[in-house]
Amino acid sequence: MANRKLRMGMVGGGQGAFIGAVHRIAARMDGLIDLVCGAFSSDPAKSKATGESLFLPAERVYGSFEEMMEREAALPADQRMDFVSIVTPNHLHFAPAKLALERGFHVVLDKPMTFNLQEALELEKIVKQSGLLLCLTHTYTGYPMVKEARQVVLSGRLGRIRKVYVEYPQGWLSEHIEGGENKQANWRTDPGKSGMAGCMGDIGTHAFNLAEYVTGLKVIRLCAQINTVVPGRKLDDDGAVLLEFDNGATGVLMASQIAAGEENCLKIRVYGEKGGLEWKQDEANSLWLKWLHEPAQLLRTGGPGLSSYAQHNTRVPAGHPEGYLEAFANLYRNFALTLQARLQGTKPQPEWLDFPGVEEGVRGMRFIERVIESGKTDKKWVEL
Amino acid sequence: MANRKLRMGMVGGGQGAFIGAVHRIAARMDGLIDLVCGAFSSDPAKSKATGESLFLPAERVYGSFEEMMEREAALPADQRMDFVSIVTPNHLHFAPAKLALERGFHVVLDKPMTFNLQEALELEKIVKQSGLLLCLTHTYTGYPMVKEARQVVLSGRLGRIRKVYVEYPQGWLSEHIEGGENKQANWRTDPGKSGMAGCMGDIGTHAFNLAEYVTGLKVIRLCAQINTVVPGRKLDDDGAVLLEFDNGATGVLMASQIAAGEENCLKIRVYGEKGGLEWKQDEANSLWLKWLHEPAQLLRTGGPGLSSYAQHNTRVPAGHPEGYLEAFANLYRNFALTLQARLQGTKPQPEWLDFPGVEEGVRGMRFIERVIESGKTDKKWVEL
Amino acid sequence: MANRKLRMGMVGGGQGAFIGAVHRIAARMDGLIDLVCGAFSSDPAKSKATGESLFLPAERVYGSFEEMMEREAALPADQRMDFVSIVTPNHLHFAPAKLALERGFHVVLDKPMTFNLQEALELEKIVKQSGLLLCLTHTYTGYPMVKEARQVVLSGRLGRIRKVYVEYPQGWLSEHIEGGENKQANWRTDPGKSGMAGCMGDIGTHAFNLAEYVTGLKVIRLCAQINTVVPGRKLDDDGAVLLEFDNGATGVLMASQIAAGEENCLKIRVYGEKGGLEWKQDEANSLWLKWLHEPAQLLRTGGPGLSSYAQHNTRVPAGHPEGYLEAFANLYRNFALTLQARLQGTKPQPEWLDFPGVEEGVRGMRFIERVIESGKTDKKWVEL
Amino acid sequence: MANRKLRMGMVGGGQGAFIGAVHRIAARMDGLIDLVCGAFSSDPAKSKATGESLFLPAERVYGSFEEMMEREAALPADQRMDFVSIVTPNHLHFAPAKLALERGFHVVLDKPMTFNLQEALELEKIVKQSGLLLCLTHTYTGYPMVKEARQVVLSGRLGRIRKVYVEYPQGWLSEHIEGGENKQANWRTDPGKSGMAGCMGDIGTHAFNLAEYVTGLKVIRLCAQINTVVPGRKLDDDGAVLLEFDNGATGVLMASQIAAGEENCLKIRVYGEKGGLEWKQDEANSLWLKWLHEPAQLLRTGGPGLSSYAQHNTRVPAGHPEGYLEAFANLYRNFALTLQARLQGTKPQPEWLDFPGVEEGVRGMRFIERVIESGKTDKKWVEL
Repeated sequence: MANRKLRMGMVGGGQGAFIGAVHRIAARMDGLIDLVCGAFSSDPAKSKATGESLFLPAERVYGSFEEMMEREAALPADQRMDFVSIVTPNHLHFAPAKLALERGFHVVLDKPMTFNLQEALELEKIVKQSGLLLCLTHTYTGYPMVKEARQVVLSGRLGRIRKVYVEYPQGWLSEHIEGGENKQANWRTDPGKSGMAGCMGDIGTHAFNLAEYVTGLKVIRLCAQINTVVPGRKLDDDGAVLLEFDNGATGVLMASQIAAGEENCLKIRVYGEKGGLEWKQDEANSLWLKWLHEPAQLLRTGGPGLSSYAQHNTRVPAGHPEGYLEAFANLYRNFALTLQARLQGTKPQPEWLDFPGVEEGVRGMRFIERVIESGKTDKKWVEL
Repeated sequence: MANRKLRMGMVGGGQGAFIGAVHRIAARMDGLIDLVCGAFSSDPAKSKATGESLFLPAERVYGSFEEMMEREAALPADQRMDFVSIVTPNHLHFAPAKLALERGFHVVLDKPMTFNLQEALELEKIVKQSGLLLCLTHTYTGYPMVKEARQVVLSGRLGRIRKVYVEYPQGWLSEHIEGGENKQANWRTDPGKSGMAGCMGDIGTHAFNLAEYVTGLKVIRLCAQINTVVPGRKLDDDGAVLLEFDNGATGVLMASQIAAGEENCLKIRVYGEKGGLEWKQDEANSLWLKWLHEPAQLLRTGGPGLSSYAQHNTRVPAGHPEGYLEAFANLYRNFALTLQARLQGTKPQPEWLDFPGVEEGVRGMRFIERVIESGKTDKKWVEL
Repeated sequence: MANRKLRMGMVGGGQGAFIGAVHRIAARMDGLIDLVCGAFSSDPAKSKATGESLFLPAERVYGSFEEMMEREAALPADQRMDFVSIVTPNHLHFAPAKLALERGFHVVLDKPMTFNLQEALELEKIVKQSGLLLCLTHTYTGYPMVKEARQVVLSGRLGRIRKVYVEYPQGWLSEHIEGGENKQANWRTDPGKSGMAGCMGDIGTHAFNLAEYVTGLKVIRLCAQINTVVPGRKLDDDGAVLLEFDNGATGVLMASQIAAGEENCLKIRVYGEKGGLEWKQDEANSLWLKWLHEPAQLLRTGGPGLSSYAQHNTRVPAGHPEGYLEAFANLYRNFALTLQARLQGTKPQPEWLDFPGVEEGVRGMRFIERVIESGKTDKKWVEL
Repeated sequence: MANRKLRMGMVGGGQGAFIGAVHRIAARMDGLIDLVCGAFSSDPAKSKATGESLFLPAERVYGSFEEMMEREAALPADQRMDFVSIVTPNHLHFAPAKLALERGFHVVLDKPMTFNLQEALELEKIVKQSGLLLCLTHTYTGYPMVKEARQVVLSGRLGRIRKVYVEYPQGWLSEHIEGGENKQANWRTDPGKSGMAGCMGDIGTHAFNLAEYVTGLKVIRLCAQINTVVPGRKLDDDGAVLLEFDNGATGVLMASQIAAGEENCLKIRVYGEKGGLEWKQDEANSLWLKWLHEPAQLLRTGGPGLSSYAQHNTRVPAGHPEGYLEAFANLYRNFALTLQARLQGTKPQPEWLDFPGVEEGVRGMRFIERVIESGKTDKKWVEL
């Protein structure tokens, strides 16, 4: 059976939504996926307008995700969507994901996976029962140099891991901007849409996921200081967490949305017995390896000395910077390659399978629940 | 008349070609363009295989660009391609571009524009007579911070420009790798395919274009040291050029393919009476403004203090790095927005028109001819 | 009365000692101080050899600090030392400092101030009773850009301070090197010489001091994770601390000696309502100011836009990097200028008085005691 | 015979002079040299005031360098100065240097060595006849990582050198500030004091010296564009030079004093067949090694993998930045160690002999003459 482009539907991502547009660019970049339908807004008129701006045929633009699931499922197999990408706020992750899986559609889902841990555990069950694919868009694990960082750790070149620093400082919520024009700020600071956590849910989970992904370790307990700094805000906008990992290593996780003047510089440092590594999103194509007894080395996207994982996730030669959208597209590309292989009955390469899924989603939701709990208690350590 | 996606054909870009794949990603990124046909190789079997890998219908994959132009022109207006993207080596730029324009197709063309200056001047005439659009893919002018650099200079904030340093060091041709597997090396070092210049044609023209684009000035004379460093090589692989601009400013242009260990760090620095600016591709989302009597400032893609030109060419908020592919896509996007406006009979925004065209192409070819001449003469200055 | 050079004696700093040589360079740099005598080692032969290598007259090289204090005190006023610099390991700070003060000598003292908090409190009393000067060499506060950072915060330009990150990663104790040739490692990991803390005493106190110095705030409680990572080590070699400041701001302090591959990159970031600042020792002549609604600015040693404090502590024009030794020398220089003013009966400038003293020493010892206590308890917060 | 501190006299360096103070700090830093006398100004009252501020005895402060040479020469051997440091403007280098050498005093001399090439050649003869030491303060060769750069090239690790870029951009003369309070600007732009060159003499010679020092090559011909950018200025304030070296390598030298907003970022890049290196004064403790087929490495002052030359010129462990004053002090230290060895009749270590002398001085003056000549001619190449 010949390979073919995959057909994607989208839930959410109406006009003005930041992340929906990002998902579409990422899905489109490598020519493996066509957007064929969408329920872009709970307001049918808005959904229609978005569909038109995306040059979609009117009959594939739906007024609700329920309608979309039903009508797409009813289309002939060679027309209906293969998978759905869900890019709504957190409170609207679970329902469309569940419905899609029940209708037999694979799912790409924005993070954090669900509104709360309970939904996450339920979704995990549904995914496992369905046998379908779920890709959770922890974007930062899509960077070639993040993949390389993981491979360096797994190779043992750093020795046993002892220390992890991961940080995610932003400044965009330094003022009380919610309640105005900024849709991003509005839902992310709203407990009814975001869940029990603000900063920790939005970016703390990215940092947490990055730490576990790069090290291959699991956090087993934590001690958090969780703050709501801006007066009148309803969720946390800042926090720091002491970590302990399952191999005995320790770490620190810092996330803030009130680090005024900071953009989005997610950064991780990992130290083992023999050396350390450092990666930060601002210089995403560089990975520092620092050695105890040798000069430091700088690995570069597309450069010499890289694993098959970094190479597979790179599009252009060294010195042509790849950015956030390419990292995001790597998630879609690996998901699509895996799905194509499944459709063709072939075995996917290990590099294709390296995208975050439902297990990472459950870890993230558990982190959110525990870190918020820790922020409120006088007990020093909370188990994860 | 409703807006619609544009239909693109491609000449060149068969499997294994670096820049063809880049063009396709760039064209695809913003959802404004569909690749509908191609003559991907002069070998029909290879063209066919490429077409299949791109999921194109067999009947739109052609064995030659002549066939493509003829058969596409014969298709109904709502099916035939709107424009052609030509991504072949330099010696195969002019003929397909000429034919496309004669058939009424707009053109996107890789740089340098043609094989020699004579072809460039002829193409300029054809374009002007045709009234059609030509976009020349000087990628680096697509970066938001390069656009901003130009706006800073044009705004007069730096005062009269006095000095320009532009450099483009690469190391990939440090060894005699031509004649082997590396297709890029093979044609770029072959006078029959590349033209009279190697390094100066391939990357010197990028540096030259960047200097003229950012400053808004024209080089009026130059003095070059042109070197073929690697034994057995047939074209220059290194050079440096003293420049004089039409406002009396001076400059230095350095380009090398034998700067062993360098990747692709195109960099420009411009100094005026009151301050200077610095941009380099390695940190493409940063633009330094340096002031004579004030602290330096760092402008950032998506950050505060930017012109409409930088903003228009940005897709994601500050701190989500945009890279080479996004810069490339900005050329396609602006070309596409301009073409859509023309098709709809509306007036394009000034920001859309800001892409390189046939005049920049002629400048580049003139630069190549003169810089190579200068490298051979004992006369100090050669007029441009 | 004419100004004159000051006469310094030294306790400790025999051959092979790192910090003694640094103190001598720092004291010597600005031509305000002459080393006139010393008790460089508890081994009289070693003390003598060091004195000779320093070209000191034999009669001013002593076999013990007790001998030095007694015999110097007996010299005529125009010959005897004005102050003593104590550069011994921590357990030998208190006794010579106490004796010096009792004999009427001013004191420069390495950090942490004493072996334990009790000694620190006692020393504080002695200093206050004596009316003499004590300078505690928290080197990093001597950097011009650290002084500027403090002035930026104090000026209110950042608004109310909300968040502080301070970190001090080193890798030099990643292996169990104590017990061998490395004198630095030997005493710093020895509870009998270093005190109750290893890493937290040696570099954690620097980070703590830097945070309080730059922000002008006081830490009021903390929660620490204190680790002894290298098997067989007797003191902590790594730790992280959650902080709360007296204005309600929070912070994180990280210090490690097992961050393999790291050198000595002390770094601080401070965020207020309107912007943030960042300084790190690796780029010691740069101070970033990051603004919520404006482009970031880079302040530079010797550059425009600096306070009198930065200017006073700078020796050369912008672009001539000043380093660790100059920062250290700034402590000696300010101490010396203050002492000269006192000797002449004139009023010191405010910039001269800006060096760490006994109060900072007590704060540091209190931090050590509390942070180690916190590391051992299950209670989340320990008051400082 | 026991080793002893060396006695230094100074010519020039009165109050307000930048470089005189730098020389004194550099000479003083390592405790090998005492300033014992000086003729700090041609105005005896100013000389006296400077001597007092330096705590020198009145009888060793002279009203002219002639007086100093005569009276110092008449002092007993164990009191008179060992060498003289000459820190006057260029037109006052030759006469005191000649007189000192004739009186038997060794000499430390600021760069460029003399007012013109003729004086340089004459001084070379005098030095060689005298058998005395002359140290020319090309400061930048004193940086540990510059020493390392030279050793890397000499070791052959980069292969045959092919390309050299050296640049020295400053902005401080962007405006016509001469004729006012700024003594530095006044004499440096005055042909009667500076010589035939402004920018090329002041900083172009530093860049030239650095290129020859690091590569071990000699420039054999050059082609220069020399500019006087600021209206009313009497000497060049900007220029760029194409270079050819004696092994066939080529290069570019850029120097400017009108690069508005730049400080003093001298930078060199050298490329050989197998790799390249990069050093810049802004990050003086880092040396990049870039490899054709391996990841780049970062060598660091005090870090692993360094030659004896870098180690010898380093005072503190890695991560304690050493700066401009330490680099300067390395010249004095090596000169002093060499002179001490001579006084003791011992053999100096090779590392001690590694300071610039009269031959570098002649090279620099030849460069100045030829580069200015090239700037005026229509002939492309001028032999050096």
